[in-house]
Amino acid sequence: MVNPFGLRIVQALKLKGIEYEAIDEDLSNKSALLVNYNPVYKKVPVLVHNGNPISESLVILEYINETWKHNPILPEDPFERARERFWAKFNNEKVKDLRFLFHQEGKERKEAMAASVENLKFVEEELKGKKFFGGEKVGLADLVLGWLANLIDTWPPHDKMIIKYHAFYDKYHPAK
Amino acid sequence: MVNPFGLRIVQALKLKGIEYEAIDEDLSNKSALLVNYNPVYKKVPVLVHNGNPISESLVILEYINETWKHNPILPEDPFERARERFWAKFNNEKVKDLRFLFHQEGKERKEAMAASVENLKFVEEELKGKKFFGGEKVGLADLVLGWLANLIDTWPPHDKMIIKYHAFYDKYHPAK
Repeated sequence: MVNPFGLRIVQALKLKGIEYEAIDEDLSNKSALLVNYNPVYKKVPVLVHNGNPISESLVILEYINETWKHNPILPEDPFERARERFWAKFNNEKVKDLRFLFHQEGKERKEAMAASVENLKFVEEELKGKKFFGGEKVGLADLVLGWLANLIDTWPPHDKMIIKYHAFYDKYHPAK
Repeated sequence: MVNPFGLRIVQALKLKGIEYEAIDEDLSNKSALLVNYNPVYKKVPVLVHNGNPISESLVILEYINETWKHNPILPEDPFERARERFWAKFNNEKVKDLRFLFHQEGKERKEAMAASVENLKFVEEELKGKKFFGGEKVGLADLVLGWLANLIDTWPPHDKMIIKYHAFYDKYHPAK
């Protein structure tokens, strides 16, 4: 299974047309290489460039964008850049937990579902009338939130995101 | 009490010499203004500039740095920028929890103390031989981690950070 935090890095490198070598990690048995490159978190993804290891997916995405300046994933205007960063961070703080509904049952699951729907509403509202978060082009927030496409069929999810989300769970993980 | 997330914004604006008006918030009774400007998190700090509200302290700091380019808080080199961002994020993920030791007792406190010391060790190691995270100048990571100075007397804490941290707790919050 591809880690969604790693996937966004791969997509950013592809968008820039940068060649890379991917090294898979067994997270139940972390390699000495991973611990050496990311001693603080011991997590993927890590990007190694010119011998320098960079950790934390949002930090890596900024690094890629600043190192290879063509096909930018952030707009020029500081406020628009702040919006992209805000929604990327919102994914990491709130939306990513949608995945964990798999492991919950009963009242806990009901509460988590309610919170998830509330968070998806913010995303749906932000995307209203737009092709991507920034308008016409894929940007930082799209790369980070794009993993949702796995759950709900289509990206960007202009509307019906919540309906599709419920349908996904009803089909694959009916409540017990 | 000044919120450490707000303090770093004030310090960044002062570093840039930007005039601002501060509006205090009673977080036990949030204002309609706050909810309007930050509907997603309903949290401080929020920076309003040219009528645009910006939330999330790390996003605000990047905005300030990109809007007023003098006295930069990020260096030019992409890898050095990534390091500043990594340590700023490390504060928000790990180091900020040091504050919550106040509320813990017994085994829970012991475990939290051990985790805190481990996290502080990473910070101490990173600062070894340097005046600030980036070298000679205050940068993003210093602004974000500077609140630690309240706990441990001096910033940057070139060494003895952990010893001072223990001393602080022994003095003001002896274990029960």
